[in-house]
Amino acid sequence: MTEKSILVLGAGRSSSALITYLLDHADEGGWHVTVGDFNIRSAEDRINGSKSGTAIRFNIEEAELCEKVIALADIVISLLPAAFHPKVATHCLAQEKHLFNASYVSDEMHSFNEEAKSKGLLFMNECGLDPGIDHMSAMEIIDRVKAQGGKILSFESFAGGLIAPETDPENPWRYKFTWNPRNVVMAGQGIAKFIQENQYKFISYQQLFTRTTNVHIPKYGNFQGYANRDSLKYLNTYGLNGVKTMLRGTLRNEGFCSAWNILVQLGCTDDTYQMEGVNKMTHRGFINSFLPYDDVEMVEGKLMSRFSLKESSEEMEKLKWAGLLNNELIGLEKGTPAQILEQILNKRWKLDPEDKDMVVMWHRFTYELSQKTHEIQSYVIMLGDDSVHTAMAKGVGLPLAIAARLFLEGKITQRGVCIPVSKELYAPILKELKSLGIHSDEVERVLD
Amino acid sequence: MTEKSILVLGAGRSSSALITYLLDHADEGGWHVTVGDFNIRSAEDRINGSKSGTAIRFNIEEAELCEKVIALADIVISLLPAAFHPKVATHCLAQEKHLFNASYVSDEMHSFNEEAKSKGLLFMNECGLDPGIDHMSAMEIIDRVKAQGGKILSFESFAGGLIAPETDPENPWRYKFTWNPRNVVMAGQGIAKFIQENQYKFISYQQLFTRTTNVHIPKYGNFQGYANRDSLKYLNTYGLNGVKTMLRGTLRNEGFCSAWNILVQLGCTDDTYQMEGVNKMTHRGFINSFLPYDDVEMVEGKLMSRFSLKESSEEMEKLKWAGLLNNELIGLEKGTPAQILEQILNKRWKLDPEDKDMVVMWHRFTYELSQKTHEIQSYVIMLGDDSVHTAMAKGVGLPLAIAARLFLEGKITQRGVCIPVSKELYAPILKELKSLGIHSDEVERVLD
Repeated sequence: MTEKSILVLGAGRSSSALITYLLDHADEGGWHVTVGDFNIRSAEDRINGSKSGTAIRFNIEEAELCEKVIALADIVISLLPAAFHPKVATHCLAQEKHLFNASYVSDEMHSFNEEAKSKGLLFMNECGLDPGIDHMSAMEIIDRVKAQGGKILSFESFAGGLIAPETDPENPWRYKFTWNPRNVVMAGQGIAKFIQENQYKFISYQQLFTRTTNVHIPKYGNFQGYANRDSLKYLNTYGLNGVKTMLRGTLRNEGFCSAWNILVQLGCTDDTYQMEGVNKMTHRGFINSFLPYDDVEMVEGKLMSRFSLKESSEEMEKLKWAGLLNNELIGLEKGTPAQILEQILNKRWKLDPEDKDMVVMWHRFTYELSQKTHEIQSYVIMLGDDSVHTAMAKGVGLPLAIAARLFLEGKITQRGVCIPVSKELYAPILKELKSLGIHSDEVERVLD
Repeated sequence: MTEKSILVLGAGRSSSALITYLLDHADEGGWHVTVGDFNIRSAEDRINGSKSGTAIRFNIEEAELCEKVIALADIVISLLPAAFHPKVATHCLAQEKHLFNASYVSDEMHSFNEEAKSKGLLFMNECGLDPGIDHMSAMEIIDRVKAQGGKILSFESFAGGLIAPETDPENPWRYKFTWNPRNVVMAGQGIAKFIQENQYKFISYQQLFTRTTNVHIPKYGNFQGYANRDSLKYLNTYGLNGVKTMLRGTLRNEGFCSAWNILVQLGCTDDTYQMEGVNKMTHRGFINSFLPYDDVEMVEGKLMSRFSLKESSEEMEKLKWAGLLNNELIGLEKGTPAQILEQILNKRWKLDPEDKDMVVMWHRFTYELSQKTHEIQSYVIMLGDDSVHTAMAKGVGLPLAIAARLFLEGKITQRGVCIPVSKELYAPILKELKSLGIHSDEVERVLD
């Protein structure tokens, strides 16, 4: 048997669990893992001396290097930022290599479907955490309900990357940056679309964080979800055309959204213009620049009167805890509001080495069976080990690694651009995830 | 004396006063006026049989036609949408023609300055109402105060196109569309920047309509202004570097902003996505799609609870009067929220033939002179005659027409890309405007 070659592109934040899994199974699978990163040291750290791995320097912008490196691979797993995936896909098409990634299928990626199919290539997308485990855990329930003869009436799904209960007990946000901080700051911009009781609903960014859904998870308490982009686009994919309610969103701890909303209302998350005088600006001055001038009132007073807050409110506590009212220099020469907010928050929201993160995913289905309305609530809780081996990295990386393994074992027959919503894919991936400690719990009841 | 040729591009909404003025002065000035429009009938209507005018078909997208038509002109006055001005300017540069328009100087227009100067061409911009009369009436006061030895401390300026007090007395908005409806719906998107008491201030769109400045104008009552885009960019142009406060904005009648803010908060002015099910959507359904689902509460109740309004509130009255809560089909097959809102508002906000509009412009200066702080409030009120001969058309068109006349009389020596902020320009233009009934009133007092 000739050894297979797996090429992993990107050795960043979410690569640890993926690479470890592939290296651990390299001998039995008969493959070698090459990890490419702009910074070869990051790739070497991930390989950690394993004889089954090789670290190389990689830069998606260098076409010759890409060609050379991809030519040697049997399959390519890309953890690069989503914007680069069409470029990776183009190389994979030219050299007839299979591609795995955890990003949303863009229009450009979708356009490669026919060519990939005709060449017998699998281009697997959305096979991480969210999107990824959310699709798979939902489809398992949807297919089961349908097989029982049930008719799905509604589907709501929320997921979020939070911090574990024992981490930073004094942090009132119950939040730190466990993935790209810029994406966290910009989250929710654009429009949220969904369908509720047969009505199309649209939530503007300025309303988004005030229109939350309460979620209770046994043993873990209360959370709040806000709607995330276009929930309608999965109606078809999930086979849910005709449901009354379809809503996907992002989960946060209780109280996060009402404090974050103040930053949104002020305009602190705007990324469209450069602010003035940033090099001399303090955190407090940043907030003040979005508030009306007043020759008597302080920043705190202006915030409280503008947003009807008491001094002892949880919102004021969060803003203060995050250092947003400190007389401390921002430490940037220039920046957009969003860039400055990220810089300020990163001072308090950066993971410390021992911090443990927590991923929470929750689905709620209602369905009709035998003239009764049933409800299933299903949830997945994942805990990180530390700031490198995060729940986020496990959630994003393990489904990808398992999909790649299944593929190399000849257990995946699909080809073309796809996402893991068919039983052929989700059943073995979820089974393997369960053996690794990632599993759903379910609560079912009859509503009427 | 050979006859000069003036080419006017665009015979739309704001062209009536401009063309009439030019035709009325054609004999004494020794010029002929050619009016080009996509729709030659519009051009003919404006010429109205005058022997001093010729109507032609014109399309800025047809390069050959543009070249031919511009070649015959001595000066070109463009009333086309601002986005086309760089294209017009390129033709004018190639054929060495002078150009007059009332739009803001874009970066592209600015880039033509050197070439225009070297060819001895005048490219006059921002020479309409706002921008235009605002610059000129402000600069007259700034230059006067400086000549007296005064030091300007602050400058605030607001202008708006409203309806005359006698028009539609039952219209609680005190507003109708007197210029491009799309621009009215989109107004304020992006960021408002200004300086207040030496502090840079930034107002996000979501806060804009709640951060208004009260303006009182003798005999005309109370108005409210909201900040408009980048007030800082005129610090230099106006020679006001070092002032403590510089704020430019848009004026509306009292109560307009708080009602409009509800539409902004709901997301009704978003132009970034297509809504679903527009062909079957009613006005009321449009508003409801931005409100939470509720199995008991009606649209009115949801609006009231979400925005803390009473049923008898002025905001609810305005929304109802505008037909936004009617069970009436929108009458579009598809559209963005902004396009749909424009369609709905146009049913009530379109000018009737006999409607009279009103333009209000207000400046407030403070300055230091002889150890005292002085204040000047200056205002211009313009009234329209009917829905064609609007105050808006006079305000935009007459300064342009007068500038063109002065230029053809050899009274303007400036060349290159400029705006009317020098005395050479504003003094004779304001004088002629005064003879046409457009003038400033001033109230001056000592503050301490």
